[in-house]
Amino acid sequence: MAISMEKTIESLYEAKKYQTLRDILSSQNEADIAAFFSEVREEALPILFRLLPKDLAADTFALMEPEDQELLIHGFSDSELKEVIDELYVDDAADIVDEMPANVVKRILQNADPEKRQMINEILKYPEDSAGSLMTVEYISLRPSMTITDAIKRIRRKVRETETIYTCYVTDNNRHLLGYISVRTLLLSNENDKIGDIMDTTPVCVNTMDDKEDVAKKMNKYDFVAMPVVDDEMRLVGIVTFDDAIDVMQDETTEDIEIMAAMAPAEESYFRTSDIKHAKNRIVWLLVLMLSATLTGSILSYYESAFESIPILVSFIPMLTGTGGNCGSQSSTMVIRGMSVDEIKLKDFFKVVWMEFRISLILSLSLAVVNGLRILLFYQDVTLAAVISLSIIGTVIMAELIGCMLPMIAKKCRLDPAIMAAPIITTLVDALCIMLYFNIALRFFFFFSYPESRTALFFCCS
Amino acid sequence: MAISMEKTIESLYEAKKYQTLRDILSSQNEADIAAFFSEVREEALPILFRLLPKDLAADTFALMEPEDQELLIHGFSDSELKEVIDELYVDDAADIVDEMPANVVKRILQNADPEKRQMINEILKYPEDSAGSLMTVEYISLRPSMTITDAIKRIRRKVRETETIYTCYVTDNNRHLLGYISVRTLLLSNENDKIGDIMDTTPVCVNTMDDKEDVAKKMNKYDFVAMPVVDDEMRLVGIVTFDDAIDVMQDETTEDIEIMAAMAPAEESYFRTSDIKHAKNRIVWLLVLMLSATLTGSILSYYESAFESIPILVSFIPMLTGTGGNCGSQSSTMVIRGMSVDEIKLKDFFKVVWMEFRISLILSLSLAVVNGLRILLFYQDVTLAAVISLSIIGTVIMAELIGCMLPMIAKKCRLDPAIMAAPIITTLVDALCIMLYFNIALRFFFFFSYPESRTALFFCCS
Repeated sequence: MAISMEKTIESLYEAKKYQTLRDILSSQNEADIAAFFSEVREEALPILFRLLPKDLAADTFALMEPEDQELLIHGFSDSELKEVIDELYVDDAADIVDEMPANVVKRILQNADPEKRQMINEILKYPEDSAGSLMTVEYISLRPSMTITDAIKRIRRKVRETETIYTCYVTDNNRHLLGYISVRTLLLSNENDKIGDIMDTTPVCVNTMDDKEDVAKKMNKYDFVAMPVVDDEMRLVGIVTFDDAIDVMQDETTEDIEIMAAMAPAEESYFRTSDIKHAKNRIVWLLVLMLSATLTGSILSYYESAFESIPILVSFIPMLTGTGGNCGSQSSTMVIRGMSVDEIKLKDFFKVVWMEFRISLILSLSLAVVNGLRILLFYQDVTLAAVISLSIIGTVIMAELIGCMLPMIAKKCRLDPAIMAAPIITTLVDALCIMLYFNIALRFFFFFSYPESRTALFFCCS
Repeated sequence: MAISMEKTIESLYEAKKYQTLRDILSSQNEADIAAFFSEVREEALPILFRLLPKDLAADTFALMEPEDQELLIHGFSDSELKEVIDELYVDDAADIVDEMPANVVKRILQNADPEKRQMINEILKYPEDSAGSLMTVEYISLRPSMTITDAIKRIRRKVRETETIYTCYVTDNNRHLLGYISVRTLLLSNENDKIGDIMDTTPVCVNTMDDKEDVAKKMNKYDFVAMPVVDDEMRLVGIVTFDDAIDVMQDETTEDIEIMAAMAPAEESYFRTSDIKHAKNRIVWLLVLMLSATLTGSILSYYESAFESIPILVSFIPMLTGTGGNCGSQSSTMVIRGMSVDEIKLKDFFKVVWMEFRISLILSLSLAVVNGLRILLFYQDVTLAAVISLSIIGTVIMAELIGCMLPMIAKKCRLDPAIMAAPIITTLVDALCIMLYFNIALRFFFFFSYPESRTALFFCCS
């Protein structure tokens, strides 16, 4: 909906031209109307919503922000509420119930018809991140003995109340999943073919308790529009549709990215999260990393006598720790993302470490040469160039290896690999890099030049 | 497919039990077979592939890795190649052609039938990241004057050669897109209804030249299984199906994450990228950031006399720069991800900056208090505690603001906001943080204690 359309609607609303408004809104897609409603003034929302035809109203309602939904529900009469709830698909209704405060939930469930209420409760009983909580219990089930004609009749009867009709599931009398058949195959077959003879029996399904992220990945792998969900006895209890799977994939990615930046994942969108909640999501890791960094500070103090004697050493610290941190975060990022899209598996541990080692050799040598030449040019000091170049080589190799190993070790320990991203890696690499650097520096300067470093070496290594 | 199944297939292959192998493979899903084939020995692949029934062979072929596809094509006779190509959907065939070396492309196009060849060439002419390159030209088009019965007849006739039949597109005689209708609606309607009367005319479509990332986002917004693609004259030229849109979303996210870790995005999967290519993707930013960090080093040298007089100052540098870097990367991550899922728009610039400023106040005060108390406890030095706490407050606020502003400024300049992530932010914040810290430290120590700092201040501020 272009901006001019929004302005038009606003002025029509001011002029109370409700019939024209109804015509305009009815011609729009529900996703556009929901996006438009999120920017409308609070007092106008109930009036505009009531202008929508019943079907479109329910579809739009399902896509609105929880705050707007709550606002509307408070303004609804019981019969209006019932009308909207009855038009909603069960999984959308369950999602809405999940987001509402207790008193609103009570009103919703009281006004849903008994069958729908039972279906909503069915979904609500599953844990938050499970396939069960994501599924809808409205699907089309067929029997193997049906003919194509029977099946199409049944689909026609059920089509109005079912979110996805394009894949139908074949079950026995005890609801055990036997196979599935697409409407496409139905249209390709002869009227008298038996469902049991033409159905696809490849056993691809998920369990109600499977993690919803795995469900989304599996649907992506098989390019399914819908995935059947079964219980422990292989009885079909629902289906997950592709639109919900895409939302899960996107939410999980956002969560990963937030964890990789050392934040607790936000539950709401950026602007809907309060300042305090934002700060709370960020402060824990900031504190942990801040205190860990004071450790690096202590290590640095330990070499105080060294940089008092050779102050130039301090000026290379940001470059060394910075490069180490960047290398570590590059390799950890590759491994974390590789694992989350299933390109890298735990059994590839040594293959990855070996690969990162080879890459780190190329990187460290290139960086060492560039830096060595730069130092020779600026300082004309071979020892200094050698110290810095050697430190870079050591730091880069160490950082790449730590960066690739820690996420895999975390996964092995059943932690989220995304924790082992830039912030932790950087803090760890900082400390190790400084130890390495001063050890190399002191040994070199002791043997080759600067007599004053002998005292420093004596202090530091004793 | 469980591991035992793979072992079974292997031993059946060794024993040359091809009939049993054919039966087992035929009962599997194409995605599983393709995954299994990627782990099979090179010499076994052509034999196993030839065991698949024709339909399944083409579906599996479309899902295999380019290397394996190339291997198979080299072993195919012309008639075998023709058989596979003819069974492929046009968009899959175009994808494969895109990945193959020139001599293989020539063979593929020579062996495709003329109509298919023309369709493949149609797709290949669009730029790599456009909707046109992603679409398939096989779709079902209906005319507004058709009845439901006519439409279902036409769908039945076309179903075999079309990837998605569930949304049909209504066009006039010049292929202008008039609307669309789902098979679901067809099944709900009466046999004599006219398509033109019941079709959905909401104008949602994309242009052939639209960026494929925007296409994927739009499909996600509208929960479409397929999105119509039109040319500049609004003539329907193809459709993008949801499975391709999901792959685009996933690839674009991986690209974003890699850029956020200061890498050039990889074109292939982790293990299929060579060491040299990996190193090349990482080295450019490492070099740039390394040289930028030497600048921070120079700033540090500038305050050499200060930390020579008050060596304890050096030990707080890692904590301050680390905390600044973490804060900056947190806020830049929130903004980059927020923009990529369209939660944050450019017009929200001041809203975001104001929000991050409030968050940074909470964070900086909390961190300053914790650190101040820790220093008082360990060092019993009020001046030092004040200097460090003030530096933390300044660093955190500065880092949060830089972190949230730079990605939005990058977007405004039509750069990828993901560039302005942790690595660049950290390098920039490091330099600013050190300047801020020493300026605060020198002013405080000059006025309150340590007489020797007066010389340092004299050196640094002159």
